[in-house]
Amino acid sequence: MKKIALLGSTGSVGQQVLDVIRAFPEEFEVTGLAGGKNLELLKRQITEFQPKIFYSLVRHDFGYEGQFIPMEEMASCPEIDLVVVATSGKAGLSSTLAAIKAGKTITLANKEVLVMAGEIIKKEADSHKSRILPIDSEHSAIWQCLAGEEAKPQRLLLTASGGPFYKYSPPQLEEVTVEQALCHPMWRMGRKITIDSATLMNKGLEAIEAHWLFSVPMESIEILIHSQCIVHSMVEFADGSVKAQLGVTDMRLPIQYALSYPQRWPNSELPHLDWHKIQYLNFEPVDYGRFPCLKLALDAGRLGGTYPAVLCAADEVAVELFLDHRISFTDIARVVQKVLEEHKGIDRPSLEQIMAADAWARECAGNFYRIVARPVSSGSFEWGGETTKELDKAFSD
Amino acid sequence: MKKIALLGSTGSVGQQVLDVIRAFPEEFEVTGLAGGKNLELLKRQITEFQPKIFYSLVRHDFGYEGQFIPMEEMASCPEIDLVVVATSGKAGLSSTLAAIKAGKTITLANKEVLVMAGEIIKKEADSHKSRILPIDSEHSAIWQCLAGEEAKPQRLLLTASGGPFYKYSPPQLEEVTVEQALCHPMWRMGRKITIDSATLMNKGLEAIEAHWLFSVPMESIEILIHSQCIVHSMVEFADGSVKAQLGVTDMRLPIQYALSYPQRWPNSELPHLDWHKIQYLNFEPVDYGRFPCLKLALDAGRLGGTYPAVLCAADEVAVELFLDHRISFTDIARVVQKVLEEHKGIDRPSLEQIMAADAWARECAGNFYRIVARPVSSGSFEWGGETTKELDKAFSD
Repeated sequence: MKKIALLGSTGSVGQQVLDVIRAFPEEFEVTGLAGGKNLELLKRQITEFQPKIFYSLVRHDFGYEGQFIPMEEMASCPEIDLVVVATSGKAGLSSTLAAIKAGKTITLANKEVLVMAGEIIKKEADSHKSRILPIDSEHSAIWQCLAGEEAKPQRLLLTASGGPFYKYSPPQLEEVTVEQALCHPMWRMGRKITIDSATLMNKGLEAIEAHWLFSVPMESIEILIHSQCIVHSMVEFADGSVKAQLGVTDMRLPIQYALSYPQRWPNSELPHLDWHKIQYLNFEPVDYGRFPCLKLALDAGRLGGTYPAVLCAADEVAVELFLDHRISFTDIARVVQKVLEEHKGIDRPSLEQIMAADAWARECAGNFYRIVARPVSSGSFEWGGETTKELDKAFSD
Repeated sequence: MKKIALLGSTGSVGQQVLDVIRAFPEEFEVTGLAGGKNLELLKRQITEFQPKIFYSLVRHDFGYEGQFIPMEEMASCPEIDLVVVATSGKAGLSSTLAAIKAGKTITLANKEVLVMAGEIIKKEADSHKSRILPIDSEHSAIWQCLAGEEAKPQRLLLTASGGPFYKYSPPQLEEVTVEQALCHPMWRMGRKITIDSATLMNKGLEAIEAHWLFSVPMESIEILIHSQCIVHSMVEFADGSVKAQLGVTDMRLPIQYALSYPQRWPNSELPHLDWHKIQYLNFEPVDYGRFPCLKLALDAGRLGGTYPAVLCAADEVAVELFLDHRISFTDIARVVQKVLEEHKGIDRPSLEQIMAADAWARECAGNFYRIVARPVSSGSFEWGGETTKELDKAFSD
């Protein structure tokens, strides 16, 4: 029996992790549960799984005799075999580092951990022989395609649904409402990631994650629009051979693979692809002009250092502002771009420098959003050169 | 340097094997060359590669000082690291067995070897720890998808181009000429296999091969029409995850993988897929009614014993008769069906029994083709039950 600590049990991914665990009661013991603000749900989970240790963001008397301990301690607890990091935002960073330093195997759903501090995480994981297994469908696909391959991949082909607005014209994108943006056509996810999927920022963050997870240069990661979400990503090898992983659009599939790895288990609750119904798989190139967030993310990933952390923080604030109806959908990219332009990057930053950049970016986004929440005029300041020009073009279209 | 014996060097696959070897002169030494009737080509190959040992189907003085030895001896020669069996028909069977008994690693392009004697080949390979690596694009795809997987596949999805006549109506199929049938839209191949591709018999033989190569029951092998020949096959696992291998339509890619395995080498002569041009990948279910050869092959594979050998032999004769303009394109299936119906199968046959069934089937096909070279009426004799009914339906349409 694998003893699991689940950090972020009340979030969308966390709940689906518990769904998978429920389907295999013989295989797992939920030893630790850490939930967010949804105390009612956390209480139900604690009652059901009876974890020895638990944590909640808001301290609360659950009338439960298990031990209440901080997430970092839970992640490094000697009893735990597998730490599932399903928190969101930078909340997961310190717990992930604690788990790494304790040499744990980690299944990681928290995007920001690798985007913000990929270099540090990777170095620590290597030196503590801690293994990081992806849960995200795209990274799981790449991981599955790399199984048994000696050679490094030559190129990663990260597929993207394109989100609900991929066919929208620039003026239509300006008018996108919060309600429209929260409706993702393919995936059941949290609010922040649903907006990031609509702007394609999410795909850019995934590219940065993939860069660290699989040690592939950003330049060798290509995005491909595949609105059906059946091909979850592909890998090209030196000889030109391409491997793809396909499956139904259900997060429980990659979650289960991460939990059952290196085995694969039948799960009657997970539907299989029906090849009598699939007449084709569609692909199209990305239009960076209409989805500047993706280009901003890829450029931030290429620049490295503190830029990805700044990207993350600025995006989090911008999405919050959008959800609060204070900026428009297309303003999200404008806010993020402005903050990136203002940032003076630090190479090979320490964790403290990353945290400082994060705090600076949040303040900066909070201050500047009123200024940039309109078409950006071509300023003299340039970062990443081409991006600014492309963005200007996109915004002036 | 891997020391290679190439059996069947003058055939289509053999020539492409040499193309790959030419691209990596540091990696391979062609120690043995065995060619067919094309003495002029074999002479050029001998002059170029200077093999220590050689063989030709027709004895001939090449004015070359290398040693002339039979194929079986070449295949088991202690010096050889890798035996490439690129012969066709049953010619490769005894050499493959000789290589297996010498514990060699074999890359196998000769379909009939596994179709006729899969059970024997598999048993011998297991007991002599001889490894059989596929060269065919479909089997190579499955093999690549299975790399690093602990679990047995749940289902193989064998893709088929459908050949040049997939959209033809039954009356149009009746009128297919030899010249039309020899023009395959996607693959450059020999004459026999080109006709087998047009009748889809080839896909049925591949299914039987896959059954032995990957120890998957015939019932778990599904055929999917994919006219673009980009997805070379797919594997479904117990959890519902599907892995696919994709690549350009060029036999040199799977050949190179078999030769470079477990490595992958860049080869500037092999084009890569261009994802800016691929707008979709198409799939459709097989119509067994119009392509009865495929159903005959799958049924023969399920029945096992001597049936697949009889299928192979009858098909070889029938294709020869078609190429000689003595029967029509659709008569190929009729001849094969008639011979299968007449056959009294033997379970777990010895090599001698397989050879006897082969000889019997050839004679039978040669005798019966005049009788069956017209719509078959529903006889009282049934083998595989459903097939006969489906075929009758197909032929009466």
